[in-house]
Amino acid sequence: MKKKWFVALLLLTTIISAEAHFFTHNQPFQFASACLSLLFWAALLGKATESVAHYSGERLGGLLNATFGNAAELIIAIFLVKAGLFDMVKASITGSIIGNLLLVLGLSVFAGGLKFKIQQFNPLLAGHNASLMMLAVIALFIPAVFMHGLTRSEISMVSVVIAIVLIIGYFLWLYFSLVTHKEELGDKVDGMPDLDQHEEPDWSKGVSLLFLLIATVFVAIESEWLVHSVESVAKALGWSELFIGAFLIAIIGNAAEHSAAVFMAMKNRIGVAVEIAVGSSLQIALFVAPILVFVSLLFGNPMNIIFSNYEIAAIAVASLIASSISRDGSTNWYEGILLVLVYIILETVFFVV
Amino acid sequence: MKKKWFVALLLLTTIISAEAHFFTHNQPFQFASACLSLLFWAALLGKATESVAHYSGERLGGLLNATFGNAAELIIAIFLVKAGLFDMVKASITGSIIGNLLLVLGLSVFAGGLKFKIQQFNPLLAGHNASLMMLAVIALFIPAVFMHGLTRSEISMVSVVIAIVLIIGYFLWLYFSLVTHKEELGDKVDGMPDLDQHEEPDWSKGVSLLFLLIATVFVAIESEWLVHSVESVAKALGWSELFIGAFLIAIIGNAAEHSAAVFMAMKNRIGVAVEIAVGSSLQIALFVAPILVFVSLLFGNPMNIIFSNYEIAAIAVASLIASSISRDGSTNWYEGILLVLVYIILETVFFVV
Amino acid sequence: MKKKWFVALLLLTTIISAEAHFFTHNQPFQFASACLSLLFWAALLGKATESVAHYSGERLGGLLNATFGNAAELIIAIFLVKAGLFDMVKASITGSIIGNLLLVLGLSVFAGGLKFKIQQFNPLLAGHNASLMMLAVIALFIPAVFMHGLTRSEISMVSVVIAIVLIIGYFLWLYFSLVTHKEELGDKVDGMPDLDQHEEPDWSKGVSLLFLLIATVFVAIESEWLVHSVESVAKALGWSELFIGAFLIAIIGNAAEHSAAVFMAMKNRIGVAVEIAVGSSLQIALFVAPILVFVSLLFGNPMNIIFSNYEIAAIAVASLIASSISRDGSTNWYEGILLVLVYIILETVFFVV
Repeated sequence: MKKKWFVALLLLTTIISAEAHFFTHNQPFQFASACLSLLFWAALLGKATESVAHYSGERLGGLLNATFGNAAELIIAIFLVKAGLFDMVKASITGSIIGNLLLVLGLSVFAGGLKFKIQQFNPLLAGHNASLMMLAVIALFIPAVFMHGLTRSEISMVSVVIAIVLIIGYFLWLYFSLVTHKEELGDKVDGMPDLDQHEEPDWSKGVSLLFLLIATVFVAIESEWLVHSVESVAKALGWSELFIGAFLIAIIGNAAEHSAAVFMAMKNRIGVAVEIAVGSSLQIALFVAPILVFVSLLFGNPMNIIFSNYEIAAIAVASLIASSISRDGSTNWYEGILLVLVYIILETVFFVV
Repeated sequence: MKKKWFVALLLLTTIISAEAHFFTHNQPFQFASACLSLLFWAALLGKATESVAHYSGERLGGLLNATFGNAAELIIAIFLVKAGLFDMVKASITGSIIGNLLLVLGLSVFAGGLKFKIQQFNPLLAGHNASLMMLAVIALFIPAVFMHGLTRSEISMVSVVIAIVLIIGYFLWLYFSLVTHKEELGDKVDGMPDLDQHEEPDWSKGVSLLFLLIATVFVAIESEWLVHSVESVAKALGWSELFIGAFLIAIIGNAAEHSAAVFMAMKNRIGVAVEIAVGSSLQIALFVAPILVFVSLLFGNPMNIIFSNYEIAAIAVASLIASSISRDGSTNWYEGILLVLVYIILETVFFVV
Repeated sequence: MKKKWFVALLLLTTIISAEAHFFTHNQPFQFASACLSLLFWAALLGKATESVAHYSGERLGGLLNATFGNAAELIIAIFLVKAGLFDMVKASITGSIIGNLLLVLGLSVFAGGLKFKIQQFNPLLAGHNASLMMLAVIALFIPAVFMHGLTRSEISMVSVVIAIVLIIGYFLWLYFSLVTHKEELGDKVDGMPDLDQHEEPDWSKGVSLLFLLIATVFVAIESEWLVHSVESVAKALGWSELFIGAFLIAIIGNAAEHSAAVFMAMKNRIGVAVEIAVGSSLQIALFVAPILVFVSLLFGNPMNIIFSNYEIAAIAVASLIASSISRDGSTNWYEGILLVLVYIILETVFFVV
């Protein structure tokens, strides 16, 4: 998108959503305008994070990208946690994970596959991604199986242990992939140099930091407005919290990454696209979800880590098919279709439930 | 089998089953004779389909084989749907899938493995088959998990959406494997040329079409007779609908393919055997099952796509172990044994339930 | 460990546990001393089995190792079966399987990975191990899904059929791996010769047999003492039978193998370590568990093969992640961490339940 248009739309939607929030009582309108505005602020936040990461040197930058790459989703979720909308938090986590693994990855693989017969990437990375995703699925699945008949404090204790295990797993993964085995996991399959080292950021260091700050503040503000109106909108439309969280909110937080991944795939950099899509899922499952458990403790209203059977089934199914397709380090258009079809099945059912 | 014997047995069993149907009230006898006769008509129908496909040119022929390869099973199932025996329909779908993935594939791999130490086939095909099978399992698993507490019309709506998704997935797969990526998926591992292009069919074009027509009509007739007597036989023998559908009816519709696959494996063409066994499962899961949902709508008595937990567990388990064994594109006798052992476990439990 | 110390501790703990059993009524003390003593006798039994296997020639030796390698666990479990503590038996089987697949394998891979950046082993073996483990999971999962509402005698019948299938599967696997496909499955990846052919046992044939006999007798005696006090200890400590079986008893029976596997991994023989850890799991699932079903029939108090949902979930999850990590025949420190993290999650939940 042209920069001018982006800035214009960013400002316009922000002003509209502010007016809607302060001067009207029309909650669907408040909700819709906050959603639109969030789309743009989340995109800016993502770009600013990348830019700051660029100036931070390789390792610190990798760490920044890996922990704040989903900052917008984290901020929205924190406001949902604050409002006690735990079901919607979990639905949005679920939606982000399946959206990344099925819709983003699927569209990328499909779009790339239309232009290139077979696209290849590092199978070692695919294998590790699959194993990590499995850790996440296990960590969410086990408590749901075992928790029937436990007391609240026992559930809370197990949730904290699992959250700690997931965060340890995530940071050791960063250490593994950014430090000890950086080279083995690189996207060297097609002989092209890494893009990241070539692209110069648009902004200076100072401007990047300023944008990071501004975008974070506005994502927070718009998130609060969105959360403020979400319940009454859900009621008015007759949509379930599950669907709003797993579809609408998940799409808003991830739209920028979605387009970036598809764009990369069409330039035959499927490895980068996979990294964006799967990496983002992992970040949400292994970092954002456990952080939210701790955040809920700070708010004095502990959220447990027990997802519903629906959500676990959806996450498990998404990660199984994504692993099955990516495990050999090669993709084609049909594999993209398969992922999108599974996404359609899951969202159809989420809509009906 | 010698042709003469085949024709003699075909005629004999047909006459006996007709007599049983029209002149006796002995329902077990009617059932048994219809079963026997169906075995031969299904084999003839399969052979006629292949022969017509041969004359239709490569692509149309491939399409014909892929959509009418399981015509006999489809016809039997349509009569079961018409009679409202939905549980038996689903059981026979389940039985066909696990029979192909475990018994046919297992016996082929075992028989081939006794003659050849290690047999190899195209691992790319194996990977795609596994992913497609996973789509089928997901499509059957998701509604069963999510459907508790939904209204009948919601269930019906979801069933139709899923049926459409599956059929789209199946036809795009045909487009992928017959048109855009035909070469990548070929069975070239062992350097032999494709058999299909060499075998001349026994019949001329006109004779093939005639046989196709006749066989279809008789499969339909015998199916109606079989369905007519199946319920009272189930009661008389004390067998569950699950077992009759998943064992007896599934075996009848697939017997011809079973022997073809084993035969191919013993000629070291394990790739063709895998293609027959796994391809047949995929066809039933992605094409026959959804078609039956639509057929039931035509009959005004909609069948949903919700399989029982037993059936989903059996299908999931069968496709998991079959993928695990075939994923590396190489087989040996022990892997065949493993598949057969899982089949024995599943059928034992189906029998007892 | 130095031999002198080993002998001294063996004798000391045995004497203490005997005194505790005969002259005190302090059951926690009886339990703790029997546990300690068992650790050493199990290690001696393992070493004696290996030594006898060495003198038995290649095939018979392989068979001996494969069937009596977990003799200590088998003996403990038999005494638990005799006491009718079926829940604890199943918990200890579960604990042995997940302990081997997650803790032992995880620590080995981690320890090896700290010294060597990437360790490799025969991926064909890894694939077969994964398929076999899947057979075991299926065999335990299927009855648990299907058994609701069956009579006791039907459950008993199915349990026996499944036990027979598993044992057939296990012995055919031994025939496959020791006779027909011995070479294909060898640990030849890193070009080193097989260790087994080089190590001379410490004892002569006669001494080995004597030690085998003595160790078996003492493992049996200590097992009886342990089982005698286990129930009252469980009550006194407030620990569940699940946790005692799945953690304590499983660790005692496997401690010797644990240290051997880690030791091998640190010498860059990761293939041997995987073989010990995964092989031991397979032995327990495919050989020890079904044997116990038959043993229970001999005692006239039939134990069924229906594991609880918790246990099946734990075994399934452990074998999925272990397969996912080992399937490519290459390991690194992070994969070890992943396995250990999953172990921590599972044992935390076992402790709480």
